[in-house]
Amino acid sequence: MSPETWSVETWPVEAVGRVTSTRREVLDDGWDAVTASITVDPRFGVAALAGLDAFSHVEVLYLFDRVDPGAVHTGARRPRGNPDWPAVGIFAQRAKDRPNRIGLSTCELLGVDGATIRVRGLDAVDGTPVLDVKPYFEEFGPRSPVHQPAWSRELMDGYY
Amino acid sequence: MSPETWSVETWPVEAVGRVTSTRREVLDDGWDAVTASITVDPRFGVAALAGLDAFSHVEVLYLFDRVDPGAVHTGARRPRGNPDWPAVGIFAQRAKDRPNRIGLSTCELLGVDGATIRVRGLDAVDGTPVLDVKPYFEEFGPRSPVHQPAWSRELMDGYY
Repeated sequence: MSPETWSVETWPVEAVGRVTSTRREVLDDGWDAVTASITVDPRFGVAALAGLDAFSHVEVLYLFDRVDPGAVHTGARRPRGNPDWPAVGIFAQRAKDRPNRIGLSTCELLGVDGATIRVRGLDAVDGTPVLDVKPYFEEFGPRSPVHQPAWSRELMDGYY
Repeated sequence: MSPETWSVETWPVEAVGRVTSTRREVLDDGWDAVTASITVDPRFGVAALAGLDAFSHVEVLYLFDRVDPGAVHTGARRPRGNPDWPAVGIFAQRAKDRPNRIGLSTCELLGVDGATIRVRGLDAVDGTPVLDVKPYFEEFGPRSPVHQPAWSRELMDGYY
């Protein structure tokens, strides 16, 4: 495709469920101390979760709905405004105020009770709309050695 | 939140870029043999990718736009219709015909050239709308041992 054929087409996404969490405020760190679950909307029914408990982890896609769409960043800036870290593009960091406002977490699956999925390490506050839940397949993870810049390691210190 | 407060609220998402791929047909397997790139929409500019090349991998969120929204599954079925595998819920498998039609891949980052990101292992066909690109942080991966059912291992045999 050539760039000339692009238009800013949009598609609607909906909440397939909601987060219940002991955390109600948007904070940067300490997410593994939070107890969270996802309750799938009744229109799906428990059949939508059949067999999920055979997996140890899930990938959760959710909407950062507390972020004002007008406050989304589209260029480069220092993560968390930290002067010790380089200015990097919005697609080179995982900040929440990003185009489409979609968050992604890999969570440990603690259990499935009816329409509710109990997880550890979900970095989303109470009431967050969930856009998708995918079982974690090891084969979809990195298939070659991982490296990443020092600032990203420093940022994650204390996150979980 | 109680289920009574739910409504099927929707939010718009837009393409932040498009996939260019040597694969134009939707096929199940052999994705690592495909050469693919993502070109970010000109409205973001190359600043949105600054510093991305310091990472070895990216997570790509994209829209399965060839899937008819009316053909989306919401319950349980056998992955790929394979009679040897159990019927599992749509949130216990990674099938493309899923609510919100969002795909997620971890890809090796081969290079960034201006507004174009060259990747290996992107399982999306030519022209696919990209919803987000996130740098891969090892700390966001599983933080405890991974296990998954036999059918998911068998399904992935030949995928990449």
